[in-house]
Amino acid sequence: MKLTILGCYSATPRTDTNPTAQVLEINNHMFLIDCGEGTQVELRRNKIKFSRIKHIFISHLHGDHCFGLVGLISTFRLLTREADLHVYAPKGLKEVITLQMKLSESWTNYKLIFHELSSKSSEMIYEDDKVEVHTIPLDHRIYTNGFLFKEKLGERKLDMNAVLNADIDVAYYRKLKQGADVPDNNGYMVENATVTLDPKPPKSYAFCSDTAYNEAMIPVIQNVDVLYHESTFIEKNEALAAPTKHSTAKQAATIAKKANVKQLILGHYSTRYDDLSMFKTEAETIFPNVELARDGKTFEF
Amino acid sequence: MKLTILGCYSATPRTDTNPTAQVLEINNHMFLIDCGEGTQVELRRNKIKFSRIKHIFISHLHGDHCFGLVGLISTFRLLTREADLHVYAPKGLKEVITLQMKLSESWTNYKLIFHELSSKSSEMIYEDDKVEVHTIPLDHRIYTNGFLFKEKLGERKLDMNAVLNADIDVAYYRKLKQGADVPDNNGYMVENATVTLDPKPPKSYAFCSDTAYNEAMIPVIQNVDVLYHESTFIEKNEALAAPTKHSTAKQAATIAKKANVKQLILGHYSTRYDDLSMFKTEAETIFPNVELARDGKTFEF
Repeated sequence: MKLTILGCYSATPRTDTNPTAQVLEINNHMFLIDCGEGTQVELRRNKIKFSRIKHIFISHLHGDHCFGLVGLISTFRLLTREADLHVYAPKGLKEVITLQMKLSESWTNYKLIFHELSSKSSEMIYEDDKVEVHTIPLDHRIYTNGFLFKEKLGERKLDMNAVLNADIDVAYYRKLKQGADVPDNNGYMVENATVTLDPKPPKSYAFCSDTAYNEAMIPVIQNVDVLYHESTFIEKNEALAAPTKHSTAKQAATIAKKANVKQLILGHYSTRYDDLSMFKTEAETIFPNVELARDGKTFEF
Repeated sequence: MKLTILGCYSATPRTDTNPTAQVLEINNHMFLIDCGEGTQVELRRNKIKFSRIKHIFISHLHGDHCFGLVGLISTFRLLTREADLHVYAPKGLKEVITLQMKLSESWTNYKLIFHELSSKSSEMIYEDDKVEVHTIPLDHRIYTNGFLFKEKLGERKLDMNAVLNADIDVAYYRKLKQGADVPDNNGYMVENATVTLDPKPPKSYAFCSDTAYNEAMIPVIQNVDVLYHESTFIEKNEALAAPTKHSTAKQAATIAKKANVKQLILGHYSTRYDDLSMFKTEAETIFPNVELARDGKTFEF
């Protein structure tokens, strides 16, 4: 899994900072998460192939999370894209994009499929053989979802020495990988665990922005490998966090600790702070493994 | 008059080029003309104070001319702007912006006034003591206007030596500036032209993008000081210009010549060309005074 931060600042784009957008590479998918103004330029700057983006997840309809979407959709059209594009977003975005396309008397030459979200409970919104995506209901000023990306548990690996020693016919290898006990060439049953190894543990990533401190998300994100949790403010500005329904670095770390995640990435910084190290220092008083998102930074896990 | 080119490329934003937006400084106004994605960042990069922008003119509803508007409007709100903002744009843009604001459950704390354009004839859309703005109907794939910005003829200047010699009471100075003949202190009438000087000749700027070659605009832009005319293509790609309703550099120059303008600025280049000097060379075969727009370039006239 590889995460590329295209933008990790709140509010509006500036010459040196970008609003929220990130790309998660997971099992050959390139999932785009949020799409603030200028995202298409940041995708190019980070050399991410437009054609590999087939699924876009939009957390909520504040401009710093979605104003870049219509431009990206239009660019895909100009590049004569043919592959389907799926957009998972709160109800309403489809209407805006449709109206903008209508007014410019253009439409996509590829299939543009909106999956409109309105549930207030976590739901699975995408699934294939290897990956699932679930919504994480968040507590913000408007309807907002985070997104949980989970690899599925893969097949068991053959321990080839043990398999050959046990004299098992190749026709049974598929069943072995699926975890079944199988007979050897003499008809004796072989216990699966004696000839196979555990699969690679599946990885998971939770994106939670924007949100107030909200313990209701904990059961959904429990034990994830990496949690990106917004920290618009530091503790001394906590009085600003509550009315705007944002979080402080300390609150983000408290969620990380209570959800027992392995790593916390902070982001969605207010542009009032010049020195981001304060966010890390503050969060580390609560939770040990903290990283700071930065525009253009990548994380591999 | 000062023109700042924020973006002068067609199609979509790239890491090194911007879609259409420019700022015309004229008689203390800062008129923003078109507003492609990323315009707010380019305004900052070019150090143009957001608070000075009170009038925005949008030529048409293709994304490369308007997708940055909603972000700019939102940023004005975040900056707690109070001054009115006037947007002159084809009918439809108000509906989009209103929907986007509604979906984000926000509205401007300043007065946002849309002037919806739908006339196919040139009309005056703005006027004050010193400046007029008229639409220039263009021929593009969708409803499109260029904009003509004209200073009004100023007052006559007093030739102070002549005024004092003529022994005219100070109470008449105002009338002299307005061009009237006035009596001297002995009751004899003084001919205005003998004691005043012609005012500074008023300047004019015509913005024409996007458009096919269209002689119908010539009467409206006749004799302007500066014409910005799109040249998406050069002549060898003329076959692309006709169906997309764009112009070549040669066609832009032909309009400049027939309209007897003083200077031509080319822009709205297709991103297929690495070398822009071809545009200038081609246009100069028809019209002598040609400049190339470039992102970040300013013109004073």
